[in-house]
Amino acid sequence: MKSGWRLQIQTGCTNTKAQVSQILKYCNSRCLAVVPQGGNTGLVGGSVPVFDEVIVNMSLMNNIISFDKVSGILVCEGGCILENLITFLDNQGFIMPLDLGAKGSCQIGGNVSTNAGGLRLVRYGSLHGNVLGLEVVLADGNVIDMLGTLRKDNTGYDLKHLFIGSEGSLGIVTKVSILTPPKLFSVNVAFLACSDYFSCQKLLMEAKRKLGEILSAFEFLDSKSLDLVLNHLDGVRNPLPPTVHKFYILIETTGSDETYDRQKLEGFLLHAMEAGLISDGALAQDINQASSFWHIREGIPEALMKAGAVYKYDLSLPVEKMYDLVEEMRTRLSDSANVVGYGHLGDGNLHLNISTAQYDDGILTQIEPFVYEWTSKHHGSISAEHGLGLMKANEIFYSKPTATVSLMASIKKMLDPKGILNPYKVLPHS
Amino acid sequence: MKSGWRLQIQTGCTNTKAQVSQILKYCNSRCLAVVPQGGNTGLVGGSVPVFDEVIVNMSLMNNIISFDKVSGILVCEGGCILENLITFLDNQGFIMPLDLGAKGSCQIGGNVSTNAGGLRLVRYGSLHGNVLGLEVVLADGNVIDMLGTLRKDNTGYDLKHLFIGSEGSLGIVTKVSILTPPKLFSVNVAFLACSDYFSCQKLLMEAKRKLGEILSAFEFLDSKSLDLVLNHLDGVRNPLPPTVHKFYILIETTGSDETYDRQKLEGFLLHAMEAGLISDGALAQDINQASSFWHIREGIPEALMKAGAVYKYDLSLPVEKMYDLVEEMRTRLSDSANVVGYGHLGDGNLHLNISTAQYDDGILTQIEPFVYEWTSKHHGSISAEHGLGLMKANEIFYSKPTATVSLMASIKKMLDPKGILNPYKVLPHS
Repeated sequence: MKSGWRLQIQTGCTNTKAQVSQILKYCNSRCLAVVPQGGNTGLVGGSVPVFDEVIVNMSLMNNIISFDKVSGILVCEGGCILENLITFLDNQGFIMPLDLGAKGSCQIGGNVSTNAGGLRLVRYGSLHGNVLGLEVVLADGNVIDMLGTLRKDNTGYDLKHLFIGSEGSLGIVTKVSILTPPKLFSVNVAFLACSDYFSCQKLLMEAKRKLGEILSAFEFLDSKSLDLVLNHLDGVRNPLPPTVHKFYILIETTGSDETYDRQKLEGFLLHAMEAGLISDGALAQDINQASSFWHIREGIPEALMKAGAVYKYDLSLPVEKMYDLVEEMRTRLSDSANVVGYGHLGDGNLHLNISTAQYDDGILTQIEPFVYEWTSKHHGSISAEHGLGLMKANEIFYSKPTATVSLMASIKKMLDPKGILNPYKVLPHS
Repeated sequence: MKSGWRLQIQTGCTNTKAQVSQILKYCNSRCLAVVPQGGNTGLVGGSVPVFDEVIVNMSLMNNIISFDKVSGILVCEGGCILENLITFLDNQGFIMPLDLGAKGSCQIGGNVSTNAGGLRLVRYGSLHGNVLGLEVVLADGNVIDMLGTLRKDNTGYDLKHLFIGSEGSLGIVTKVSILTPPKLFSVNVAFLACSDYFSCQKLLMEAKRKLGEILSAFEFLDSKSLDLVLNHLDGVRNPLPPTVHKFYILIETTGSDETYDRQKLEGFLLHAMEAGLISDGALAQDINQASSFWHIREGIPEALMKAGAVYKYDLSLPVEKMYDLVEEMRTRLSDSANVVGYGHLGDGNLHLNISTAQYDDGILTQIEPFVYEWTSKHHGSISAEHGLGLMKANEIFYSKPTATVSLMASIKKMLDPKGILNPYKVLPHS
């Protein structure tokens, strides 16, 4: 792996598993390192070469292989762009169980390899639950066919899960079989304000219980996140009167009955207003307004990019502790940075972002390792949905014990003894 | 593994992970084989010793460790009986995401180890989606702590999935962390009759779309299954007038609004009746009637036991092919056996049972390998939810290719090099 030359090629875009297999067989025999690359939208450097790795670009493996309307099971190649799958399914009356801001360029093989979370997880669960099968090419070029299209299959170890979230370091995902839910036509979106974090939590508990089966998103952002979007993105406006509230919540419901779902959400909001959990709120009157509410939440990463340098952390924490970290970080950094918190509150997933005019090592040393130590102390995860990639591989011990990491390393060694697949990623370098 | 003596002990019931660790360390050092045993309710011989294995009985590891009402995350020891967890959660306003006929004696560690499916899978998905963390003792006594309590955690390979469904052959599950949904109070159950299998399928598609978010079970049984229950179980009666229908469907909905859910189900049934999909039906008027409908479906295994000898097959098949197998088997066996088909239609899971007066090798040779070959030809699974255990380990190749099974064997070898954990199970003997 320590070869002196630099080689960085597109392999002419691979379009069959046999090609992927041949490339890996060749590279493995010559100890050439490989970076599998999907849409290259990851945030932790998992899909970019570090030194002299060969990039295997999956873009041309973008065929839909089959779709079964009785079971809702889609089988496709790993290079399919998520948004194309969403559009295809929409025409069939189904939806993908995952949706991401990066859907326009991310690929399903990459989604699977990073165990992407996103906006629908609170309703449909993780890819470990929804992916029914995979075809994977191992480092030595062997093709492992685990491409089942069955909802239940207990014949031996369910090996596909090893590859879900292993960030291309154990194999390259060439085909995916995934369970897709029927499209439900009644969608409602509300944008709400809460005066304190405790109310956000209570609102979440109430929503899980009272909106139960129709709740499809429960997202939160703090006032600093909203300010960023309002200041940096064109055409975005606050749906609520300009009073400053500390927190904003976006609730989406998805169901099969327009009238009932609306009544139910309205009833819920009225009750929450009376109980003092929300201090203001707007219910989208049409699909355009619903999109504009979503645009605020989804626009935060773009607004952060426009605001300057940004240090990004994607953390899982117990919901009741989550916002304490944002506040502690604010105290710690005082005026030197703009600390914003937003994310998937329904899943206990905080996106902590620290925005500064420019990158500054002084600020970084105030953030790290503090942010990791704090997360570890509260039994959180230092990567909820982004993965470890290159940037966080060495921080794995903040979330996983040594014995568990050793076991991961043994599996890596077994499946990729020469270490050609996505080196320097996921597992600690030493 | 070929020691000549027979040793079959209860280890005084282990009650801490340290005891399990010590037992395994000792057994591993002396090459003594071990069978982990939960409630011993499996149907494929996965929890029974074959020769001289030491039984590690988990019954005393039955403590609930924590429950977080905000997130709905339960952490408990592996020996907790499923029904006790269901009762505990019920008092907290939550439910287990899995429910089985054997709940009164099966244990959560065993449920996880066999990736149990059951009656709620169509709504809440599989244990791969719901189990958030595990503590596992490996063959050499090392304790692997993967006991996360987070909905999202992408720090390294998600190793817990290796142990979900590995039937105790890779490690012993000592603790489980599981996501539990809030209890929804409005439950409705309908018992319906269909005149042909095509109508059952159409009804399933309609139910997924029209009942969408409130559908919580879609079970089917054929008329021969119903006859068995009516003939062999005391106090069971047909909820429908005695006209013979070829198929019966049990639909359950679970939601948060009594009036609306009822209206919705009634509307659905009316529509299905008008469209000719159902030929008769009854909607439970109270909880007792709902239980009596469920009792018909859940009573089939007991009725089969009372009827004589039974050959049981638990298959996943594409829904549209599923019943063809029952009919072909009936033609094949003609008068020599009573062939019944029932199961979780919503998950594509058929329980094919062949009932005879007594066990007969002649009949068995007519059933096997035909049933496996047929399933394999139609890309099904020869074990949907029961696992392979001892009885079906050698049949794995009907559902998994050689390269995949080899990879499973490599993982077994890595985690349990002396092969002490549940030998002769899951993987083929040779």
